[in-house]
Amino acid sequence: MSDQNNILFIMMDQLRWDCLSCYGRSVIDTPNIDRIAAKGVRFTNAYVQGSSCGNSRASFYTGRHVRSHGATWNDWPFHVAEWTLADYLKPSDTEVVLLGKTHMKPDAEGMKRLHIDPLSAQGKALSNAGFLQGEHDDGLHPEGPLGRYSKIDPKYNQWIKKQGYEGGNAWLQWANAVEDEAGVARSGFFMKHAHLPARLPSELSETAYMTNRAIETIDELADKSWCLHLSYIKPHWPFVVSAPYHELYQGIDLPEAIKSEKEREDPHPIYREFMKLGVAKVFSDDRKRQHVMPAYLGLIKQLDDELGRLFKHLEEKGLDKNTSIVITADHGDYFGDHWLGEKDLFHDSSINIPLIIHDPSPAADATRGTVCDELTCAIDLIPTFMELVGQTPLYHRLEGRSLLPILHNKDFQSEREIIVCEDDYGRLPVAKTLKRTPYNARMTMAYDGHYKFVHAPGFDPMLFDLKNDPQEFVDLGRDPGYAQVRYQMQEKLLDWSATLRNRVAVSEQMFAEGVGKSLRQGILPGFWSEDEVPETRKIPTSAGVF
Amino acid sequence: MSDQNNILFIMMDQLRWDCLSCYGRSVIDTPNIDRIAAKGVRFTNAYVQGSSCGNSRASFYTGRHVRSHGATWNDWPFHVAEWTLADYLKPSDTEVVLLGKTHMKPDAEGMKRLHIDPLSAQGKALSNAGFLQGEHDDGLHPEGPLGRYSKIDPKYNQWIKKQGYEGGNAWLQWANAVEDEAGVARSGFFMKHAHLPARLPSELSETAYMTNRAIETIDELADKSWCLHLSYIKPHWPFVVSAPYHELYQGIDLPEAIKSEKEREDPHPIYREFMKLGVAKVFSDDRKRQHVMPAYLGLIKQLDDELGRLFKHLEEKGLDKNTSIVITADHGDYFGDHWLGEKDLFHDSSINIPLIIHDPSPAADATRGTVCDELTCAIDLIPTFMELVGQTPLYHRLEGRSLLPILHNKDFQSEREIIVCEDDYGRLPVAKTLKRTPYNARMTMAYDGHYKFVHAPGFDPMLFDLKNDPQEFVDLGRDPGYAQVRYQMQEKLLDWSATLRNRVAVSEQMFAEGVGKSLRQGILPGFWSEDEVPETRKIPTSAGVF
Repeated sequence: MSDQNNILFIMMDQLRWDCLSCYGRSVIDTPNIDRIAAKGVRFTNAYVQGSSCGNSRASFYTGRHVRSHGATWNDWPFHVAEWTLADYLKPSDTEVVLLGKTHMKPDAEGMKRLHIDPLSAQGKALSNAGFLQGEHDDGLHPEGPLGRYSKIDPKYNQWIKKQGYEGGNAWLQWANAVEDEAGVARSGFFMKHAHLPARLPSELSETAYMTNRAIETIDELADKSWCLHLSYIKPHWPFVVSAPYHELYQGIDLPEAIKSEKEREDPHPIYREFMKLGVAKVFSDDRKRQHVMPAYLGLIKQLDDELGRLFKHLEEKGLDKNTSIVITADHGDYFGDHWLGEKDLFHDSSINIPLIIHDPSPAADATRGTVCDELTCAIDLIPTFMELVGQTPLYHRLEGRSLLPILHNKDFQSEREIIVCEDDYGRLPVAKTLKRTPYNARMTMAYDGHYKFVHAPGFDPMLFDLKNDPQEFVDLGRDPGYAQVRYQMQEKLLDWSATLRNRVAVSEQMFAEGVGKSLRQGILPGFWSEDEVPETRKIPTSAGVF
Repeated sequence: MSDQNNILFIMMDQLRWDCLSCYGRSVIDTPNIDRIAAKGVRFTNAYVQGSSCGNSRASFYTGRHVRSHGATWNDWPFHVAEWTLADYLKPSDTEVVLLGKTHMKPDAEGMKRLHIDPLSAQGKALSNAGFLQGEHDDGLHPEGPLGRYSKIDPKYNQWIKKQGYEGGNAWLQWANAVEDEAGVARSGFFMKHAHLPARLPSELSETAYMTNRAIETIDELADKSWCLHLSYIKPHWPFVVSAPYHELYQGIDLPEAIKSEKEREDPHPIYREFMKLGVAKVFSDDRKRQHVMPAYLGLIKQLDDELGRLFKHLEEKGLDKNTSIVITADHGDYFGDHWLGEKDLFHDSSINIPLIIHDPSPAADATRGTVCDELTCAIDLIPTFMELVGQTPLYHRLEGRSLLPILHNKDFQSEREIIVCEDDYGRLPVAKTLKRTPYNARMTMAYDGHYKFVHAPGFDPMLFDLKNDPQEFVDLGRDPGYAQVRYQMQEKLLDWSATLRNRVAVSEQMFAEGVGKSLRQGILPGFWSEDEVPETRKIPTSAGVF
């Protein structure tokens, strides 16, 4: 065994935690993921910091809250001075590699201002959330009247073409399409086709492709220490999966949506608008929901099988001994819960994520197979990774806390009163209906383990008591009996926002070193006369004044 | 007259608004400044965004709140992607020039990460708050046991040496020193000497030197349009001034300190610690205060005289016709008010600044000599400057509002519910006494024109009712009768913090252009079947799926 020290950082897009069997509520089996949970720690109160794809991922990749990195929505860049995973892991010479999705766009103007060539190594890394190596594929290549959504033709398309499948955009025509009864190719976006198999066999699916790429990449990295971010697009929509996964769960007893008629009686104005969206309506229809869910579950089962293949490869290469494995998601999927679809709001169905961390070192032996219900965050991962590779987390920038003490059965002092998740809905049509400007369509959720409080400029807050209403059906945001709770939650949010790491250009060392220094460099305000100055601060006689 | 369009942006360090005679309460006359006020608009409710030197200036130079730029204290850098005045005025080819103080340090690590040479033009500008041209002199060159406070020997020192004054550090030995009765040179830091004249004549003072430099610079710039930031170190301590200014105000009736015994009865813990500082004790002693204040007033009178010389030069060159003049300060000085010295807290003596803006264009004729009591901010200046030079303010970054509508007698819609001022006291000894970490020694003040509310993590808030207690003697932060007011002020602060311009890499154009674009590029979530898709979003037939 080499002295490698690796991290396999697996993200699945839009994966609900309750679809993994190790979490105890799943109707499907995910034995390969469960095997990692049995060797590691499973977190039950892990939350994302952004409730949509882009802002959540930006927090994973920067270790900072959305408020701090400013990439508030999908495909919106953070500025070029924002550090990312690769910056943080640089001192340990860890090779940081991306395979798959980031949902980040570069800060082109920021590079131009600083005369950084976007095609230089520096520019390329800055253009892709800090990842210089690997293969970036956001896994969304549809076409519309304005052309393709993505400007990049993915390598996946070329690979499928080589396998003999005709057409310019295999993603759309083969991988995310089905054939209807008449043999016509149908886009997988249309959910009525979710019961049909994809037009490609499973071994040619995006999930299989990215797993192949992971295996190849790990082999290529040979003896180097690496952090591989394997970022699967699935089980994100389009909800289409290859045979036999498409029919594995058809006809089984599916879990009911977590919803209540009470929720529709007098909803918060923002919640009301989200309930009106097309995707919310589809998934609020139990018949349609039940038609689509087997495909979603099939995609998860396919992921688990592919991960099994990857984990087996690690074992065969002896890398299971020196590779930490992290399994998580960028957010969940309402799938009809609370009369909603997709994500964006702050119910647990959307922002509570699966998080499993396996550390192979003996220091973690005591916690294998345990469950941790601490409030934990996506932004905790970079500090955890830094400690896993032997570095000290840079807490003057990073806003999470290393979870290594939990993995090593030591005292975990998070000093965390609340976890926070944010969203910017300014670009959604609901912003117009709600008369929002580009700047005030914001929501900030604070959860202290008891109450979930949502601040939204221009509206009353939302408030849920998760101890007494774990299903989050009753909004107490306007209940006169909870004024004191709202005050306290506001205070916690103000504390949070005042203590964010905005002083990024001052390291902890710079901060500590300078204390009192200026006072010993002749800065003497507040002195009436010479005889009051202590010896340690006296003006040197050579200075020519006394 | 050329088609120049200039801005003379004058800052005086630690200048109280009530020491300018145009503000109506001064015991001294400042006729030259008053003359600009008579030609412009005088703002009575102008506030800084940071309550110490460095954080306040960083907000002036970036147009953003301390929370956003992160330069939370003196000499602490903001990161290299933060735009400054020179970036904002670049499109109009305005030459942005600095003469004097910025109190900013460069983000050395940030430049290194992006491979920016600190000695390149780019690097030099980034090293000095964005100012590439001019002369940087923070005006603090004392010496102590650890050597000199400033690493840079100012050009001022060399100039004084040329005039025949011996010694290596004229700033300390001549300009900011006096001679006692025995003929011994004494440092001006020791306030008991404030009644003695500086060792240099007024025409060799720092104030005269910087005025000379301004005149030379304006002449050198010839026909170019410019924005000259003339940033005087005075009337900041050391409180030493040349003859005859040192004795002009000795023996006159000085205003009494704004203070009340009530304030010392049960003060807020943070306020209590600031009252214990040496400088607070000196200025709380009326006799000592009265001994020092004539020197402070003399420094202001000297500034006014020098500005008179500068304004005369502008007139002689015909530049008064195309030069806007802005006169302001980075904060005030308690000078014994509220039993305090210097700055750092949020009483009006400290954070309410003089602000006078004169626009020579005919559009401003209607408002000449008027007074504006709108809540205005230091961060309003960059958008104002952008409009003065014919640019559109970049409100996706800038957090203030242009004041040009006020100058041009048009509707001013600030959408501003509160003005905010912040401080980070983490590096002061009081932080230790108050058991603060490097991250939670923060205060955030919100003022809505009626209440002043100060949030401070770990402590009760402070609250002052300025309508009924304009002198700010009664802290209602713990008064049970004001719970509702505190809730509302908290809500306003949360709204403020949620709507800060963190999405800096997304211009308003980018934001607007993309609306609905992805939907016409094939992103079709939430559709059950093909026939639901509107014509504008249909998949093109060439795509190979239907």
